[in-house]
Amino acid sequence: MKKLMHLALALGALSLSVPAAAQFAKAEDAIKYRQAALTVLGSHFGRLGAMAQGKMPFDATAAAADADVVAVVSKLPWHAFGAGTDAGAPTGARAEIWKEEAKFKERSDRLDAEVTKLVAAAKTGNLDNLKAAFGPAAQSCKACHDDFRRRR
Amino acid sequence: MKKLMHLALALGALSLSVPAAAQFAKAEDAIKYRQAALTVLGSHFGRLGAMAQGKMPFDATAAAADADVVAVVSKLPWHAFGAGTDAGAPTGARAEIWKEEAKFKERSDRLDAEVTKLVAAAKTGNLDNLKAAFGPAAQSCKACHDDFRRRR
Repeated sequence: MKKLMHLALALGALSLSVPAAAQFAKAEDAIKYRQAALTVLGSHFGRLGAMAQGKMPFDATAAAADADVVAVVSKLPWHAFGAGTDAGAPTGARAEIWKEEAKFKERSDRLDAEVTKLVAAAKTGNLDNLKAAFGPAAQSCKACHDDFRRRR
Repeated sequence: MKKLMHLALALGALSLSVPAAAQFAKAEDAIKYRQAALTVLGSHFGRLGAMAQGKMPFDATAAAADADVVAVVSKLPWHAFGAGTDAGAPTGARAEIWKEEAKFKERSDRLDAEVTKLVAAAKTGNLDNLKAAFGPAAQSCKACHDDFRRRR
């Protein structure tokens, strides 16, 4: 009975970790995935920034479309920083990610909160709203890059 | 007046092309962007496939989440195949993409239609529905790869 209980607990723990783990057969896959998600995110986030900073004409339809992509893609990279994905392919991720997990999580939570505001602002169709929300969102990217991304 | 009209037309044409063009300063950026979008797409699409083919336990919540990502990200790569993006970074894109634009467009339209069905199926929470929709969606990926992606 005790053995069965152990097995049940072990299987329970396993099934909890399946969704994130099973997406990546190898560390290399996780590294390439998170880099790809950040590339897509950066492209659409960058376009919102170009509009916010007047480097590109404001286009309300494009801004709303970019916001839709940012909303979905900004949630993707973080689960690909699992244990054992610090090496296996070229990566700019610093070892601190796995040493200071709570801080890393705090950073992605902050991004989440700022992105939610940015997405709402971009969808108002008002450039001033976009300008007001872009700065704090960009700061939340930078805060994480400063601590957890290797200097390039 | 005629001059003004020409200017207005020129500006009109310019603003129409701004959203797609302005996202990419260089061909290299477009190539990296579309590769990144396809990497993210492939990862989530692949997980739906693993569930559909019984290689991974079916998880209705994960399947619905994957479907949400596939719905958004499957729309992204195509506008990054603009004129002049056939070179500038390593790419598996064949020159036929720019020679047979209508056929390439037909392929991405077909993917669009199949992905819409796949997303709806994945969100029913029923594995049989996912199985039925996955095959045709995977075929729509393959049809495009066969014609437009370099052999690896």
